[in-house]
Amino acid sequence: MLERKTLLDSLGITITLLEEGHVIATMPVDERTHQPFGVLHGGASVALAETVASVGSYHLVDHATEGCVGLEINANHIKSKSEGVVTAHGTILHRGRSTMVWDIKIVDEEEKLICVSRCTVAVIKLKK
Amino acid sequence: MLERKTLLDSLGITITLLEEGHVIATMPVDERTHQPFGVLHGGASVALAETVASVGSYHLVDHATEGCVGLEINANHIKSKSEGVVTAHGTILHRGRSTMVWDIKIVDEEEKLICVSRCTVAVIKLKK
Amino acid sequence: MLERKTLLDSLGITITLLEEGHVIATMPVDERTHQPFGVLHGGASVALAETVASVGSYHLVDHATEGCVGLEINANHIKSKSEGVVTAHGTILHRGRSTMVWDIKIVDEEEKLICVSRCTVAVIKLKK
Amino acid sequence: MLERKTLLDSLGITITLLEEGHVIATMPVDERTHQPFGVLHGGASVALAETVASVGSYHLVDHATEGCVGLEINANHIKSKSEGVVTAHGTILHRGRSTMVWDIKIVDEEEKLICVSRCTVAVIKLKK
Repeated sequence: MLERKTLLDSLGITITLLEEGHVIATMPVDERTHQPFGVLHGGASVALAETVASVGSYHLVDHATEGCVGLEINANHIKSKSEGVVTAHGTILHRGRSTMVWDIKIVDEEEKLICVSRCTVAVIKLKK
Repeated sequence: MLERKTLLDSLGITITLLEEGHVIATMPVDERTHQPFGVLHGGASVALAETVASVGSYHLVDHATEGCVGLEINANHIKSKSEGVVTAHGTILHRGRSTMVWDIKIVDEEEKLICVSRCTVAVIKLKK
Repeated sequence: MLERKTLLDSLGITITLLEEGHVIATMPVDERTHQPFGVLHGGASVALAETVASVGSYHLVDHATEGCVGLEINANHIKSKSEGVVTAHGTILHRGRSTMVWDIKIVDEEEKLICVSRCTVAVIKLKK
Repeated sequence: MLERKTLLDSLGITITLLEEGHVIATMPVDERTHQPFGVLHGGASVALAETVASVGSYHLVDHATEGCVGLEINANHIKSKSEGVVTAHGTILHRGRSTMVWDIKIVDEEEKLICVSRCTVAVIKLKK
């Protein structure tokens, strides 16, 4: 990953674990990620979920010959939250040659479910 | 809506039209919304889509007795983009007593499809 | 398509129009497609939607060298229905080299929305 | 549940376990559930998933005062299958007053993942 400013900076997302098929990341619940009524914006949760799936997928492809792009993402918003930190746990459900599917669960400090998401990532063969 | 900092500021989202069942909003494609390779982060698109659905739903409920919360959102990422502006067009597909369903299409400056999303919003009766 | 019994027979699905990027199909609402309380089973709607997307995609690929498989499907159930016929209108949203995305709207006899769905289909290069 | 013919008969779906927050059901992979090329139709998988979520939700509501209806369902098709039986395991992810969210995983005889789905069910207060 290159050192440039990204959405991760805008929303305060930090990757805290990156293993084969498992990624953890945190995001603050504050004015960077609030919606206008002062609670976590559902879109921030989805941005966190897609970050986790993308980082985890990129970690698994052969960087010399492959890239990856997000195809589809969906999410259910379960519980609201107005401050503190949320933590996303991404786990790979399917690792295929051309697609990967990730399950992402976002929880609060007490491990209560805030959001559940599934993301489909395409593995792309790079042109030489 | 209250005047506080939100995710809309973090990502540069601006609501440009708000009518009954129709919302338009714009978002810059720059370092605020990029992923690490310098293209639009899919999560930014979904955050834009959910903003449009939420703002449009809130516009339709009776603020004295009702609120609304996002239940579910999904999106397909169709086309990548590295700079400029994207525009989201939200159209209501279903206006029920307890749920609304929105279709959101995000396009580039040439009206080419960047992302297509659907968002389900619950209408909540406020306790008095 | 080969002449064998399929889910289309089980549910009474009939393709009534097949054009480039546009498919129409009908399905009865009767005991073949009911859930236990005598209304249209949401799963029947999704099966109809995926049929439309699959048939439409297969119509667009080069049968000598390509196949297609459904990757993801999602649907909102909008309105219940206990008898009669539903009609699905599938329209292609994106025709890429490796994926297609279809919008499917299922309506009743009065064109009222019963279900809205989106389906992502992968285009597969066949091995020779 | 009433004794009438339904989609469950059309597709051969059998509920084999029904506990609080956990449902198991099976479905044959044969001409009842095939697509035209003789493999499991993705729509059959989704119909099975929605059946599991619906049966599990209905089991949890107070039948005197509440009903439930499917709001949204999504699914990723992971692996194809041409014969035998698939088994769906439904687990409740969220049990709220007005909505439930279910995770459904469909596997083959060797526990390999065929399809993963998430279903949102609305709990409805019945009018007296």
